[in-house]
Amino acid sequence: MIIKDPQVAKLFADPCRRSILHNLRHREMTPYQLAKALGKNVSSIIHHLNALEKAGLVKQSRRAVKGNLIEKYYKATAKIFIISYTLSEGITPGSEDIARWTKEICRSASMSLEAFGYNIPERNRDRISKLIERYSSLRQIAYEEAISKQRRPVNISQPALRLLISLLSSIHLYHNPEFSEIMEELSEILRENEGTR
Amino acid sequence: MIIKDPQVAKLFADPCRRSILHNLRHREMTPYQLAKALGKNVSSIIHHLNALEKAGLVKQSRRAVKGNLIEKYYKATAKIFIISYTLSEGITPGSEDIARWTKEICRSASMSLEAFGYNIPERNRDRISKLIERYSSLRQIAYEEAISKQRRPVNISQPALRLLISLLSSIHLYHNPEFSEIMEELSEILRENEGTR
Repeated sequence: MIIKDPQVAKLFADPCRRSILHNLRHREMTPYQLAKALGKNVSSIIHHLNALEKAGLVKQSRRAVKGNLIEKYYKATAKIFIISYTLSEGITPGSEDIARWTKEICRSASMSLEAFGYNIPERNRDRISKLIERYSSLRQIAYEEAISKQRRPVNISQPALRLLISLLSSIHLYHNPEFSEIMEELSEILRENEGTR
Repeated sequence: MIIKDPQVAKLFADPCRRSILHNLRHREMTPYQLAKALGKNVSSIIHHLNALEKAGLVKQSRRAVKGNLIEKYYKATAKIFIISYTLSEGITPGSEDIARWTKEICRSASMSLEAFGYNIPERNRDRISKLIERYSSLRQIAYEEAISKQRRPVNISQPALRLLISLLSSIHLYHNPEFSEIMEELSEILRENEGTR
């Protein structure tokens, strides 16, 4: 599922809501089970579930009677959630927070290149961050293009679905001249600054 | 963490053990919490946890005294687990099951192309499966190459780490002539068999 509404995407900024969705992608769970699993109290879980249900990200999958209680089970409405590049690039009005969050992730990734043996000099840092942002954006656009081609539900395992979407988006990227330019420039900067072991 | 021991990799074939690891990557949990979250009984969770601990995939993170019980908390030993291509290609002795499992995933991905609007004729199916296997393998090799460059632990969020590893492996793939060949051949087959909406 591709998220295009900034109000819905904002729900993903909260780690607890991300964890709830994460748990509900593969199985149905009750608020009580979620509370136990995430170490939160039931009322806060119910609060989050209501927000997620209103946004169409989770739904009630069944009710079970246990003693004199009715237990509601919840399930995510999709196996994979992707925040649209129209939000992470801040194109859609109201998506400024998400764009900032995305930028932060790219910056943090570029800062960690050193741990992988690349000693990026000060003067290249901004450029690297920009290139990583473009990379992340193009990759997301390719993902969305691949997913949007889906015409009917598929009944395959999560790893197989991920592989297929990764393949289709790789093909898109392979034919994108801007992607090649980014790869060229990044490889050059990384090659120049590869530390010796 | 790159898994190279076939005995360890086999632990991933079980969905319950995969779920346990999945839950323990981001937080510590007790066997009781895991049992509640996954809808299993505690003794089977403890059984799985022992196997995972012996394989070095999880570890006890702390003990808490609660009433007259000692609760053990467990945590995964890495944020990302990757099964080495030496196993998924069946190169290492004893990895035949894992190689079969990988092939199955690639086959299932290729069978699902139809849901994305590609009507692959019978005569191309085996070839597509083979190409997807190669794609999956090269991608994994690139991932491993990227991860093996890491020299010290990084303290960044999961999305930032994933982005960085995806970027570094994309650069490897970009410079791999075999990858370009696979992309060319796959694009051609897909283009020829693209259905009209």
